[in-house]
Amino acid sequence: MEDRVAPHGTRIVDCGVQVAGGMFAGRMLAEVCLAGRGETQIVPGDPAIWPGPAVSVSTDMPLTACLGSQYAGWPVNVDKYFGMGSGPMRAARGRESILQEMEILEQPEAVIGVLEASQLPDEQVCVTIAEECGVKADQLTLLVAPTSSIAGAIQVVARSLETALHKMHEIKFDMTSVLSGLGVAPLPPISSNDLVGIGRTNDAVLYGGQVTLWVNGDDKMLSELGPLIPSSSSSDYGRPFAEIFEQYNHDFYKIDPLLFSPAVVTLLNLRTGNSFRFGKTRPEILGSSFGENS
Amino acid sequence: MEDRVAPHGTRIVDCGVQVAGGMFAGRMLAEVCLAGRGETQIVPGDPAIWPGPAVSVSTDMPLTACLGSQYAGWPVNVDKYFGMGSGPMRAARGRESILQEMEILEQPEAVIGVLEASQLPDEQVCVTIAEECGVKADQLTLLVAPTSSIAGAIQVVARSLETALHKMHEIKFDMTSVLSGLGVAPLPPISSNDLVGIGRTNDAVLYGGQVTLWVNGDDKMLSELGPLIPSSSSSDYGRPFAEIFEQYNHDFYKIDPLLFSPAVVTLLNLRTGNSFRFGKTRPEILGSSFGENS
Amino acid sequence: MEDRVAPHGTRIVDCGVQVAGGMFAGRMLAEVCLAGRGETQIVPGDPAIWPGPAVSVSTDMPLTACLGSQYAGWPVNVDKYFGMGSGPMRAARGRESILQEMEILEQPEAVIGVLEASQLPDEQVCVTIAEECGVKADQLTLLVAPTSSIAGAIQVVARSLETALHKMHEIKFDMTSVLSGLGVAPLPPISSNDLVGIGRTNDAVLYGGQVTLWVNGDDKMLSELGPLIPSSSSSDYGRPFAEIFEQYNHDFYKIDPLLFSPAVVTLLNLRTGNSFRFGKTRPEILGSSFGENS
Repeated sequence: MEDRVAPHGTRIVDCGVQVAGGMFAGRMLAEVCLAGRGETQIVPGDPAIWPGPAVSVSTDMPLTACLGSQYAGWPVNVDKYFGMGSGPMRAARGRESILQEMEILEQPEAVIGVLEASQLPDEQVCVTIAEECGVKADQLTLLVAPTSSIAGAIQVVARSLETALHKMHEIKFDMTSVLSGLGVAPLPPISSNDLVGIGRTNDAVLYGGQVTLWVNGDDKMLSELGPLIPSSSSSDYGRPFAEIFEQYNHDFYKIDPLLFSPAVVTLLNLRTGNSFRFGKTRPEILGSSFGENS
Repeated sequence: MEDRVAPHGTRIVDCGVQVAGGMFAGRMLAEVCLAGRGETQIVPGDPAIWPGPAVSVSTDMPLTACLGSQYAGWPVNVDKYFGMGSGPMRAARGRESILQEMEILEQPEAVIGVLEASQLPDEQVCVTIAEECGVKADQLTLLVAPTSSIAGAIQVVARSLETALHKMHEIKFDMTSVLSGLGVAPLPPISSNDLVGIGRTNDAVLYGGQVTLWVNGDDKMLSELGPLIPSSSSSDYGRPFAEIFEQYNHDFYKIDPLLFSPAVVTLLNLRTGNSFRFGKTRPEILGSSFGENS
Repeated sequence: MEDRVAPHGTRIVDCGVQVAGGMFAGRMLAEVCLAGRGETQIVPGDPAIWPGPAVSVSTDMPLTACLGSQYAGWPVNVDKYFGMGSGPMRAARGRESILQEMEILEQPEAVIGVLEASQLPDEQVCVTIAEECGVKADQLTLLVAPTSSIAGAIQVVARSLETALHKMHEIKFDMTSVLSGLGVAPLPPISSNDLVGIGRTNDAVLYGGQVTLWVNGDDKMLSELGPLIPSSSSSDYGRPFAEIFEQYNHDFYKIDPLLFSPAVVTLLNLRTGNSFRFGKTRPEILGSSFGENS
C-alpha cells in the first residue's frame, strides 16, 4: 500500500496499481468497502473445492455493510477514466435507487470510497467524486486497486455475501428479516489479463462461494424464494464466466443479472429453527477456470 | 448489542433478548465468560461433520478461564427469574465448591457476569446478584442472551473445551497437569423453541465437539482416565440430546452428568511426547438433530 | 510467558523454559521472528493431513520478514550455551552472507531477537549478543523457548513459508519476483525428548507444510525451478526426519540442505495468471512420526 495526499487534497491509497499491494491491503480494502461493519479473513480453503486460500467475510449489519456500502453500484466514469465505485461514498452521493429505497443516505463532512480500477484517479476524477458526495476534494479518501492485483482480487471475492443479498433484494425477499451473514469463497490465481481475471473472480463466487444467513422470517417465503438465490437459478449458469461474457460480446448488461450470486446459500430461520440449503459448489468449473500448469 | 445503565445503576448489555445480537455479540459474550483469558472465533466448519460455521475457543489459562469463570455454575433464581450464571462474577460470589477447591475466590470492586436467560434481569435480580458478589448494584455489569439467539448459541458452543475440563475434574484427572487447550464445535441452526435449541447446542458439543489439551502428566493416568472424558463414555450417549432430555422428563439432574463432554478429546503429553485421542464425532446424529428442509 | 529484566539490563521473555508458555506465547514468538511483518494463527488443521491444529503464517513482505528476520541463521554459541538465533537482531549483527547479499543491515538503537534454546541466556550470552549487534546489554530484548515447548514448537512450524523462500534463494530463484506468501503446517505433539521434537517439527513442514506464493515472474523459470522447491526434490526425502538425522549421526550439516522445504509449494504468477503446484503432503509419514497411543 502506498498512501499519499494529492496536490488537490484528496488522499489516495494505492493498493495495487503502481505498487504490489498484497493480502493486508486486500483485507483493508474489503473492510472499507463494508464501511467497517464487517470483517474479512484469508483462511485455508476447503481442498475439495479448490486447493488454495479462501476469503471469508462476516457481518451483523448485512444490509448497511453489503448493500449500503460494499455493492459496487457507482460506475465512476470521468472522461476516459473508469472505475467501479463502492464503499461509504455511495451513501454520501445517494443517487442509487437501492440506497434511496433503503434510506441509506448521508451528509458526512468527510468521505471515503473504493475504486476497482486499473489506474489511479487524477484531479478531475477526485474533484468530480467529491462534488457528487457534497464535500471538498481535500475531504475525500480513495483506495484503489485493479481486479488483476492481489488486493483487488481479495476485495472482489469478499463480495460472496453481498452478491447473495443483492440478488435477494432483486427477487423481493423480505430484507428486513436478514440478521447476520457469513460468506466464504476461494481466492483464484490473479491474472494480469483483465478478462481472465474478471472470469476467475466471478467464478470464485458463482461456483465456489458459500453463504450462510441468519433470518427471522416465514418458512414459506424461504422455501419459495430460496431456490432462486444461488447462481444455479440463472439460465446462464454452468459455464466459466469468461465463456458467458464472451458469448454476450463482453457486455455485462446482457448477462442475466440473476447469475450474480454464490454457489450455495444456507438460510437459518431463527423463528422456526428450520434451515434451508440451496445450490452446490462446482469444483470442476473452478478447476477449468483457475487453471494449473503442473 | 444494546448497552444501557438501569436506574438502579447496573449496566445491562442485551446480546439477544430484545435485540437481534449477532456473531460479534456472541464472541464478546463468550470471551467475557472466559474472563478475557481465552479467544473465540467463528471458523468455517469441517464439512464432513456439519456443513456450516463452527466456533473455536483457545486458552493458555484453561483452569481459571473455563472452570473458574466460563462454567455456568451459578443458577440465578430470583422470584420467577431464571438464568444460568457464568463469567467472572462467580469468583466474586465464591460459593461454589469447585471454586473453593480451586481457590478461585475474589473480592473485586466491580463485577461482570453473563446470564443465559430469556429475559433481561429486573432491579431485584441485579441487586441480588450484586449483593452475593459483595458489590453495589452500580458496580455490576451483566451481559444477557437466550440460548435461542445467535449470540446465545455461540456462547454455549464455545463451551466445548470447558465441558471437557469439567468432566476431567469430575473423574479426578490431575488438573494441575493441564497447560493449554483448544476446542471447536459446529454452530447449529438456532431455534426459537427452547427445547430444540437446548438439544442442538448440546448435540453440537456431545457429537461434534473436538478438544485438544496439552498436558504435562503421567501417560498411565492419561490412558486410564482418557477414555472416560469424551461423551461416548456415558450410558446416555448415542441419541440426540432432546430425546434424552425427554426421557428424563426434562429434568437435567437425572441425566448422567458424565454425558456432558465433547465427542473427541486429544491429550498431548509434553512429558513423554505421546498423544492420546478418545471418542469420535457423530455427523449422523448432528444431521438428525440440526435438521434441514431442502 | 514471564517477562523480566536481568541485572545486566537485558529484558528476557521466557516463553517456555522455566514457565509453560503456551499458544499465545508461540504466536508472539513467531511474529517477533517475522519482525512484525507477518501474522500467524492457530487454525483447525486439514483432517486428511493430520487431525490436530495447524499453524498458519502470512506476509506481504516475505523477503525481509522471512529471510531477513525469521530464518534462524545465527547459531548463538557462547561457552556451553547454545541457541538458534533469529528475529530482527540478525540484521543488527549483519554478518550473515544472505543478509549482506540482500542488503538487510541495520544499526538500530535497540534490538530484539529470538533464541530457540533449552536454557535462558546468562549475562555473558546477553552481553555477547548485544555487542555483536552494536548495542548495550540494556538495549537488548530476548524471547526464549525450547523446541520441546508449546511456544517453541509453534514458532518452528510457523517457518513453513520461510523454508520455501530459503530454498528458493539457494536454487537461484529470482527472489525479487516474490510478492506475498502464505503457509500452513500441522502442529505436532510436543516431545520433551529433543530428538523426537526436532524430528516432528521438521516432519510437520517437510511432509505436511503447504505454501502459496504470489510471484511476478517468468513462467519458464517457474516451471523449471518450481519442481526443485518442495522437499520431494531432495535425495533424503521420504522418511521421518529423526531417521534421516540418525543416519547422519545427528550432524545437521551432512543432511542434504535441499531437504528443508515444505511438502507442497504453489506458485501463482501474476504476470501470466498461470499457477504451478509442486510436491504433495505425506500424511502416512506424519502419522508414523507424530505417533498416537490410543
